[in-house]
Amino acid sequence: MKLNLNADLGESFGPWPMGDDERLLGIVNSANVACGFHAGDPLVMRATIQEAKRQGVSIGAHPGFPDLQGFGRRQMQMTPDELHAAVLYQLAALGGMCTAAGIEMTHVKPHGALNNMACEDITMSTTICDAIRAFNEDLILLAPVLSELARAGESAGLCIGLEIFADRTYTDTGSLTPRRLPGSVISSSDECIKHVGKMIEAGGVVSTSGKVLKTPFHSICVHGDNAHAVDTAKALLQALQAQGHKFMTLPDIIA
Amino acid sequence: MKLNLNADLGESFGPWPMGDDERLLGIVNSANVACGFHAGDPLVMRATIQEAKRQGVSIGAHPGFPDLQGFGRRQMQMTPDELHAAVLYQLAALGGMCTAAGIEMTHVKPHGALNNMACEDITMSTTICDAIRAFNEDLILLAPVLSELARAGESAGLCIGLEIFADRTYTDTGSLTPRRLPGSVISSSDECIKHVGKMIEAGGVVSTSGKVLKTPFHSICVHGDNAHAVDTAKALLQALQAQGHKFMTLPDIIA
Amino acid sequence: MKLNLNADLGESFGPWPMGDDERLLGIVNSANVACGFHAGDPLVMRATIQEAKRQGVSIGAHPGFPDLQGFGRRQMQMTPDELHAAVLYQLAALGGMCTAAGIEMTHVKPHGALNNMACEDITMSTTICDAIRAFNEDLILLAPVLSELARAGESAGLCIGLEIFADRTYTDTGSLTPRRLPGSVISSSDECIKHVGKMIEAGGVVSTSGKVLKTPFHSICVHGDNAHAVDTAKALLQALQAQGHKFMTLPDIIA
Amino acid sequence: MKLNLNADLGESFGPWPMGDDERLLGIVNSANVACGFHAGDPLVMRATIQEAKRQGVSIGAHPGFPDLQGFGRRQMQMTPDELHAAVLYQLAALGGMCTAAGIEMTHVKPHGALNNMACEDITMSTTICDAIRAFNEDLILLAPVLSELARAGESAGLCIGLEIFADRTYTDTGSLTPRRLPGSVISSSDECIKHVGKMIEAGGVVSTSGKVLKTPFHSICVHGDNAHAVDTAKALLQALQAQGHKFMTLPDIIA
Repeated sequence: MKLNLNADLGESFGPWPMGDDERLLGIVNSANVACGFHAGDPLVMRATIQEAKRQGVSIGAHPGFPDLQGFGRRQMQMTPDELHAAVLYQLAALGGMCTAAGIEMTHVKPHGALNNMACEDITMSTTICDAIRAFNEDLILLAPVLSELARAGESAGLCIGLEIFADRTYTDTGSLTPRRLPGSVISSSDECIKHVGKMIEAGGVVSTSGKVLKTPFHSICVHGDNAHAVDTAKALLQALQAQGHKFMTLPDIIA
Repeated sequence: MKLNLNADLGESFGPWPMGDDERLLGIVNSANVACGFHAGDPLVMRATIQEAKRQGVSIGAHPGFPDLQGFGRRQMQMTPDELHAAVLYQLAALGGMCTAAGIEMTHVKPHGALNNMACEDITMSTTICDAIRAFNEDLILLAPVLSELARAGESAGLCIGLEIFADRTYTDTGSLTPRRLPGSVISSSDECIKHVGKMIEAGGVVSTSGKVLKTPFHSICVHGDNAHAVDTAKALLQALQAQGHKFMTLPDIIA
Repeated sequence: MKLNLNADLGESFGPWPMGDDERLLGIVNSANVACGFHAGDPLVMRATIQEAKRQGVSIGAHPGFPDLQGFGRRQMQMTPDELHAAVLYQLAALGGMCTAAGIEMTHVKPHGALNNMACEDITMSTTICDAIRAFNEDLILLAPVLSELARAGESAGLCIGLEIFADRTYTDTGSLTPRRLPGSVISSSDECIKHVGKMIEAGGVVSTSGKVLKTPFHSICVHGDNAHAVDTAKALLQALQAQGHKFMTLPDIIA
Repeated sequence: MKLNLNADLGESFGPWPMGDDERLLGIVNSANVACGFHAGDPLVMRATIQEAKRQGVSIGAHPGFPDLQGFGRRQMQMTPDELHAAVLYQLAALGGMCTAAGIEMTHVKPHGALNNMACEDITMSTTICDAIRAFNEDLILLAPVLSELARAGESAGLCIGLEIFADRTYTDTGSLTPRRLPGSVISSSDECIKHVGKMIEAGGVVSTSGKVLKTPFHSICVHGDNAHAVDTAKALLQALQAQGHKFMTLPDIIA
């Protein structure tokens, strides 16, 4: 099976580092890069783009709410007009910096609370897709399987990359188990590998109760906020490669 | 003579309006649009781009220091690396929003303290020119006549638009009379028209003492922060048109 | 009847003015001063405090969400901990600047979306009251009549100033008619005066359908964002004074 | 000899931690706490105040330039009016949060570029002292020995705590060796201990060339940005205690 590993990167800001980007970029195939609203600054963005290019990782924009202190994880109520302009601005900023670095920006994945809200709210996800199309209709939208965001992207005629999470469990409706509930996050590498293996075998999401929701998927989201998370990502990659799966960038899978 | 009128636009922010952009865009040929660091926000930028396009005004980026409260008018010490990335980010953000709106961004003019510092500091102006070339080497750099910024742009091989100010007087070295000195700003429309007329006739800057510094120029900078300023811009345009001068966008003059 | 007029002031930011604060401070008795999160900056705050003191107007903090571009009018989801600290910070900043200017800060009124949410959400309003008590338990909470915020303040043992709006209509449940509905805002001075007169006579809120919800109130909120609004505030004051009502600061009414 | 150890604390922001504050607060006697302009946010400030109180550490404000991305380390040109209001705002915010936590804020130390500029610029340092006096004339100004800032504080009648640096060398004029020069920073614990020991013995600053500039001092500034720095601070404390020096808070030394 052709697969992709994606991770959120470029989340440092000013004097504050976050994540081991250099090492994680040696593992994943596609990077979702913060655009300066919830994390990232021009220096961080430029450096992340250069390192992703050097390591052959495809780059996507990771637009978020304008909320640095809250890291884009706090819900905000924006009008469709405000949201459209805010997403467009962030796509433009990162996309132009990619062009300047001699690499093409090829996908978009909303961040944090913006992503969570868009996954359940068709108006928001449609607005995000409008902004993506206004900027570049060839961009791939990286969206969680079974989400309103994925549906909005299809309606908008965008190429869709569907993602599952290696370290998060699912409910019977196919949404992520909320973080406040026990068992929502899988911390052991072995469990992550089993979790992903079950979903590959089942051809869809497997909920905590064992229910299968059939859906194609292209990408597995991994995290890199600490050394353990990077190790898990690496172990997952090696296990899946050992099973014969091929890993590649999003445009190589989707296009 | 072929001439251009330029003005700083899109300087509103959130709930706070600034300037009569709609009317000013009916007068000038080229707009320097704030990019969100010292003024402007995504909504303001998008609206300004659309209105400029509607009125046939060419668009340039107006990058500034990251200082909203100080409106980019306070000097900041940034390393060349920080400055390069900050300018690149702003060019990318506005440039991509222009592309999305179906109009090309064609020039760049630094704002406020960044412009003032770059006009006297060859390291800063060289850094700015590097960022411009990294983004798009066909962009026109709009720079004050006789400035280090103009010189850096020439060395960098950029197309240069040279500007004079209709409402500011010059010292014998060709720099603007500092604002804190009496007579630095010309407030009467008639005086502005005479001031520009003298410089056109002399083929260069005419200082307050009457000294002439020969230099080509392509563009006249006007202001629009209040109704009087817009009236002055309009009177200047009409007076110069009556004298037979032709007004056009920066790319029409420079390219 | 003893009455108070209050208004939101100090809502300029950096180069962007808002409202005719000087004139409005000649009309109202109590000022709700922005604290730098949704509007206001240290210079604006200091100047507003000085002018309020000069004109004998009592000062309150007007804390809002950390959202300058959205002017604190966009709902944000903050944890109780985040909200408590954010309100406390703003109270402290304005309160300390008042002390430095030789005037005491005597009340608090949440701003915009924070106020709207707190009026309907007892958890949020309780958190706000906790922050107020932590800073100074003698502060008066200025809250809309019939709101959860007023109820939370009473439970917390705070002194409460209850306010009605001169230029907004009420529904049968006592909440403001949402702005998106026709008839939510009263724009004529005469209608504002009649609206307030009816509520004084009825001893409570009078809804658009004529329903009376009995409630004490102490203060009338007026606006000053444009010349017309300031004229309305002045006309209202004069009409009510002519009817024999006495106007005074919040501490003079409540304490 | 009575001595004090001080360190900059509360420099985390939102999701980004900085420094091992809990451990460092077990070593130093006085904490300079960031106020939200260059670092710190309301949650970080509140937590830092509580932990300092718990560990018996005296608290001071650490006001900086409004430049989060640059961590307040980039020079900014502010007018005296802007600077006064910005410092006052930060003192008020932290001071009020201390009061709410039941601990008194007892000193002030400017941060980063603001401190560096004030140490050489009598206008800036006088403005800072004016803001301190406006807020609370009993506050101790913690200033580098031999600096314009210390002189301005004396002229203003403030109590002065004079500090030396354990891990920075001095030039013959008594200023810190600029960071860009070799030997400016002392990284070994043993060297730091020797460096401080020499200055205690000499009764003043000892420059790299061996020149002695006699001056009283009360406090030694240590850093805590990494585990090594915290270890150095601890080793220094133990070595000096072993020599019989007594450590205490700034108010205990100065008052």
